[in-house]
Amino acid sequence: MNYAILFGGNSYEHEISIVSAIVLKKVIHTHLEFIFCDEERKFYHIPEQKMNSKTFSTKAYKKEKELFLKQGGFFYKKFFKENKLKTDCIINLIHGRDGEDGKIAALFDFYSINFIGPRLEASVLSFNKALTKIYAQSVGVKTLDYTILNKTQDTNENISFPCIIKPVRLGSSIGISVVKDKKDLEYAKDVGFEFDNELIVEEFKNDIKEYNLAGCMIKDEFIFSIIEEPKKKEFLDFEQKYLSFSRHDRLIEANLNPELKIKLKDNFRKIYNPLFKGALIRCDFFILNDEVYLNEINPAPGSLAHYLFDNFNSTLDALAKNISLENKIQIHYNFLHSIHGQKGKL
Amino acid sequence: MNYAILFGGNSYEHEISIVSAIVLKKVIHTHLEFIFCDEERKFYHIPEQKMNSKTFSTKAYKKEKELFLKQGGFFYKKFFKENKLKTDCIINLIHGRDGEDGKIAALFDFYSINFIGPRLEASVLSFNKALTKIYAQSVGVKTLDYTILNKTQDTNENISFPCIIKPVRLGSSIGISVVKDKKDLEYAKDVGFEFDNELIVEEFKNDIKEYNLAGCMIKDEFIFSIIEEPKKKEFLDFEQKYLSFSRHDRLIEANLNPELKIKLKDNFRKIYNPLFKGALIRCDFFILNDEVYLNEINPAPGSLAHYLFDNFNSTLDALAKNISLENKIQIHYNFLHSIHGQKGKL
Repeated sequence: MNYAILFGGNSYEHEISIVSAIVLKKVIHTHLEFIFCDEERKFYHIPEQKMNSKTFSTKAYKKEKELFLKQGGFFYKKFFKENKLKTDCIINLIHGRDGEDGKIAALFDFYSINFIGPRLEASVLSFNKALTKIYAQSVGVKTLDYTILNKTQDTNENISFPCIIKPVRLGSSIGISVVKDKKDLEYAKDVGFEFDNELIVEEFKNDIKEYNLAGCMIKDEFIFSIIEEPKKKEFLDFEQKYLSFSRHDRLIEANLNPELKIKLKDNFRKIYNPLFKGALIRCDFFILNDEVYLNEINPAPGSLAHYLFDNFNSTLDALAKNISLENKIQIHYNFLHSIHGQKGKL
Repeated sequence: MNYAILFGGNSYEHEISIVSAIVLKKVIHTHLEFIFCDEERKFYHIPEQKMNSKTFSTKAYKKEKELFLKQGGFFYKKFFKENKLKTDCIINLIHGRDGEDGKIAALFDFYSINFIGPRLEASVLSFNKALTKIYAQSVGVKTLDYTILNKTQDTNENISFPCIIKPVRLGSSIGISVVKDKKDLEYAKDVGFEFDNELIVEEFKNDIKEYNLAGCMIKDEFIFSIIEEPKKKEFLDFEQKYLSFSRHDRLIEANLNPELKIKLKDNFRKIYNPLFKGALIRCDFFILNDEVYLNEINPAPGSLAHYLFDNFNSTLDALAKNISLENKIQIHYNFLHSIHGQKGKL
């Protein structure tokens, strides 16, 4: 399997995605291509030796070959000819908007490109935290109670303190505030509304235990990562998140009784199958009084959560081999032929 | 406003979309361009005089100029140069897959193209009939009770007769059966599973009244069509649907008491705002014991349901003028600069 990593995007997590790709470069053993989507949403082919932060922060990437999407893949121009970038499977590593909101899934389905990442429906349901709650409920997975705040119909009813306020459509801790009492509420809302017209408010439980589990489904079998209990202050900020997925030290499985581990995996299965087929996702769960609650779904987790797997490369290869393109519909024009038979009706 | 109509797509409703575009050609008064998406998902620029069924059924369209999506629009090649197709706004008139499932919305958002049609989230929530039910409930709109049948976990529990069985992700009456008793169930399921892995089953109420209402929101105001009571046998089949939106005779508003008309419009508003901003949609409702139930949302209705409007051209222009592109995020690389300051950490 030869992969291409797609990263960047017009996203608040653009820079996190660059870091994520640089980290994954060191982890994946087979031949890799790198496709950068810049803030203007133009694609560039980045040579491996230029995969460092300076290439992007200085905009040196603009000197590299531009790539174009066409049926079947990414293409570049060479002496008036168009050549296809050779790769077996593209890893969608654009975090946040473009990558996780469904745009890349739609583009790749439309252009018949093999890829690892969430599909269109899965993206929309996991990118919007309110839809994630509704989806989780529909497959029998618990979530914490919540209220939605709307920029245009602004009320503070149903909010108790302390609470955590998040933009409905963002990841990577951006725009999130923990609000301890009412006097800090307006500021937290202003921060959140910078990023989205809707905010989700949940009770903030300081003593809640958080557990992360990554995995994917290959044929009918699940491959799970270890269960991680992430370190936290109140919650991970942007830089901590970056550090969390660039670490190289081996993680230790969370100290959790076997029944709860089984519960976590059962909840993961319910979330994953069949909506997230084709993706390697990380689910972040809470455990409260021995009950499992879904916190959020990361359908394109930082550096694909490689650090949680004992056998990341073989998991990735097995997943990639198991991916199929969206089926194509054959058009026979029977209906138009029949109209046409009726003497130029159209 | 100069429009381009995008039609075709790799969809079971490909041919319906061609008819829909040919009909709309006669209805829209301003200059029009025609962009055909063929079954291979290649785009062609069709001259107005060739907008007839034969161009497509004989595949003569393949001789026309091919179009490519790039930032800002559709482009074509001319003497080694790339020219942009001039248009102010594209009408997404691809019915079913590609057009209504979110792919076209994603492509146009990604490539910063002005368009009339449902956006990404709206597409996903209206294309999947099970998600439509959940969405309707979340905004306080009633729907009929239902059961989901899954191709892989096939059970017939909870089904009573007569029932109506529909693929979860299709429009235009394709794959739909009314099942009067148990002996016809397996055949109806086989038909449905040809088109989707999930089927939605509802009680079939022969005496239920159906009402269609189209509209859109411009700034804070709704423009509504008349309320139509569609003629039906048991339900409209493919050919009837085509006939229903190609008709030229003026429709007569349904004979319905004023309170119920207000109820229908209130339910339309709840469904539309804000999810469907940018689209002209048709909602199909049931009325049962003076209660309104949503049947389905058509986010790109046949020929944009022009026949339901007294003032279709001015509605379309007002909608088009009110559409804005997805906001762009500015990337400043502050985070990468800060890493870079820490001595070549990446």
